[in-house]
Amino acid sequence: MAHKPVPELKPVPRLLMGPGPINAYPQVLRAMSVQLLGQFDPQFRRYMAETSALYRQVFRTRNRQTLMVDGTARAGIEAALVSLIEPGDKVLVAVFGRFGHLLAEIASRCGAVVRTIETPWGTVFEPEAIERAVKKHRPKLVATCQGDTSTTMAQPLAEIGRICARYGAFSYVDATATLGGMPLPVARWGLDVVSAGLQKCLGGPSGIAPMTISDRAAAAIYRRRHIEQGLQKKGYRPGRGPRIRSNYFDLAMIMDYWSEQALNHHTEATTMLYAARECARLLLAEGLEHAFARHAAASRLVLAGLRELELEPYGDLAHKMPNVTGVWIPQGVDGERVRHRMLERHNIEIGTSFGPLHGKIWRIGAMGANARPAAVRRTFAALRQVLRGERRR
Amino acid sequence: MAHKPVPELKPVPRLLMGPGPINAYPQVLRAMSVQLLGQFDPQFRRYMAETSALYRQVFRTRNRQTLMVDGTARAGIEAALVSLIEPGDKVLVAVFGRFGHLLAEIASRCGAVVRTIETPWGTVFEPEAIERAVKKHRPKLVATCQGDTSTTMAQPLAEIGRICARYGAFSYVDATATLGGMPLPVARWGLDVVSAGLQKCLGGPSGIAPMTISDRAAAAIYRRRHIEQGLQKKGYRPGRGPRIRSNYFDLAMIMDYWSEQALNHHTEATTMLYAARECARLLLAEGLEHAFARHAAASRLVLAGLRELELEPYGDLAHKMPNVTGVWIPQGVDGERVRHRMLERHNIEIGTSFGPLHGKIWRIGAMGANARPAAVRRTFAALRQVLRGERRR
Repeated sequence: MAHKPVPELKPVPRLLMGPGPINAYPQVLRAMSVQLLGQFDPQFRRYMAETSALYRQVFRTRNRQTLMVDGTARAGIEAALVSLIEPGDKVLVAVFGRFGHLLAEIASRCGAVVRTIETPWGTVFEPEAIERAVKKHRPKLVATCQGDTSTTMAQPLAEIGRICARYGAFSYVDATATLGGMPLPVARWGLDVVSAGLQKCLGGPSGIAPMTISDRAAAAIYRRRHIEQGLQKKGYRPGRGPRIRSNYFDLAMIMDYWSEQALNHHTEATTMLYAARECARLLLAEGLEHAFARHAAASRLVLAGLRELELEPYGDLAHKMPNVTGVWIPQGVDGERVRHRMLERHNIEIGTSFGPLHGKIWRIGAMGANARPAAVRRTFAALRQVLRGERRR
Repeated sequence: MAHKPVPELKPVPRLLMGPGPINAYPQVLRAMSVQLLGQFDPQFRRYMAETSALYRQVFRTRNRQTLMVDGTARAGIEAALVSLIEPGDKVLVAVFGRFGHLLAEIASRCGAVVRTIETPWGTVFEPEAIERAVKKHRPKLVATCQGDTSTTMAQPLAEIGRICARYGAFSYVDATATLGGMPLPVARWGLDVVSAGLQKCLGGPSGIAPMTISDRAAAAIYRRRHIEQGLQKKGYRPGRGPRIRSNYFDLAMIMDYWSEQALNHHTEATTMLYAARECARLLLAEGLEHAFARHAAASRLVLAGLRELELEPYGDLAHKMPNVTGVWIPQGVDGERVRHRMLERHNIEIGTSFGPLHGKIWRIGAMGANARPAAVRRTFAALRQVLRGERRR
């Protein structure tokens, strides 16, 4: 097999105005070019501890167990679910889009008995609807997304923690699409486990999943702790409860790894940890409230841009995520051709959607580094031009 | 919760001469500072296809299914095992160190009936011993490491594929610690699934796991294909066989994601993909044979350095990995104090080991960017100085 040379990376730069990933902050890119450290180097353990501390502020919690799962946002979801769920446990998932279906599917692969409630795409649940379902099914765990980019809707969560506590259930929230873009005060809302990714409002790449775990949930997970045979010391006794079905996603082991004990598990993804640290550092330097306001302002600019082009936004605007906006593709317009031209002629990426909305809506994101007026204006100037060509056809 | 400012990353640079992670090549660090692209951007899909093509050359195979799992090397292991194993399947693991135990543990969490054979730490198996165990247990899958850094031993694998084929078993090899440092001609040796990481001989960071899958293994995995509910199209029929227990590690879905169909699964870890591409690009530009020779030469230099310091190498030298060398800690020397001084006074990291070898051996790596004479010389100059202080005590 002959060696065929491949050139260096030199992509034509794109402005990423879809539902994510989006462009990374330049400071995050620079942080990722920092030379590696060993994972037990005191300098690196300090970076890990700082990263935990930063994400406690981002998540607005004092949860000791605030750590990273090495994988994409989806890895964070699976780590949370597989560690919380014992086969046979009942799990209730509130589904308001594709990523709700994903939670249900992952829970079911973890061996859960899954119950779902659904609401039409483009809407969210009243807290009472969730409470009724919890009361009826009495699940061990209630799982939902905060924002589901497939529909661009954001589920109000202020009541969920209390509802779960009332019925003795754990709560899990997938905040991948919203963390850093809208409020998510984990402690105040009493949420048990929340996970996210960097590639949306945090302005970093996919590949590491920040997560916070309440003491109560951590205790339930830790009860199932098992140490690998190659690492066991004398007198070790395995935890009670069935062993967590995954080694990689075993949060009991990952908590041990992140603890001062620093028990070996995976080899930390150094560069992604650097990125996670930098994303949180930038967000907190800006200030959470400022970042939320910036995303809200970008959202208003997107909606104003749609009005100017006589395009109709999708779904219940009272519950739209600030960082992504769905847009009905006008009759007679080839949505995919428009996306293609936006990309090829203007170097701007906007999104399509999934399942029932595929080819029916575009999704325009304005988040993280791109939640700024110039990025929105550039997008709409290009979209106007592309649509003019399209409407002349 | 007040915002406590955290400074930019500015680690004191270390020379990483442990069992990995090691220093990344500067070109890999630069590749990771390249701006992100959307995962369905034609430019990015081209980078993915190039990365597959590059790793086909690195693995010396034509396997169509040569792809990346987004997570550390351990994620690659778990993806391979959970996708190959159906609960109740018999799996034989050849254990010659801690990472063999890890394979057994992961297989067992996947629901396998696990059988192990063990050989004393510091030795490897005769192929005949493996064949006898395969003949006796008739496993569906035989799993082993190529190199187990915990003992610094490398298992000869040339016969394994043939043995497995003879008894109708699949073979899985964890090549995390060796890929790029010693020969692993996957096609010639007839291995089914091989996975690795970047943080050893490839000179990149942990966080993405290159993997190659034979057509035969891919077919067995694909037979269990299930598409997420949110993505199913009309007429979709789920695969036969039990659904793979993990969504994130479902290689059938990951193969779909990597295919031209580009079915959505995770959001590709862009930066880690860039790193994986650059690592392979550099290795192939150097030439595999040259890289193997460079690691072998560095290994000889390490052994010569040990002789000069009258230190005794660990284990069966005929089967030592070229990129890591175990060293008996001399009587009366505090191994951890030496490691600490190497790090704090000389900015050089060397390793300890696990389980029965913890505190008994050091592990000195010379791999990837650090498999070069100057790095080995600097390490031994420092070690001489530290040991002189130690022996005077």
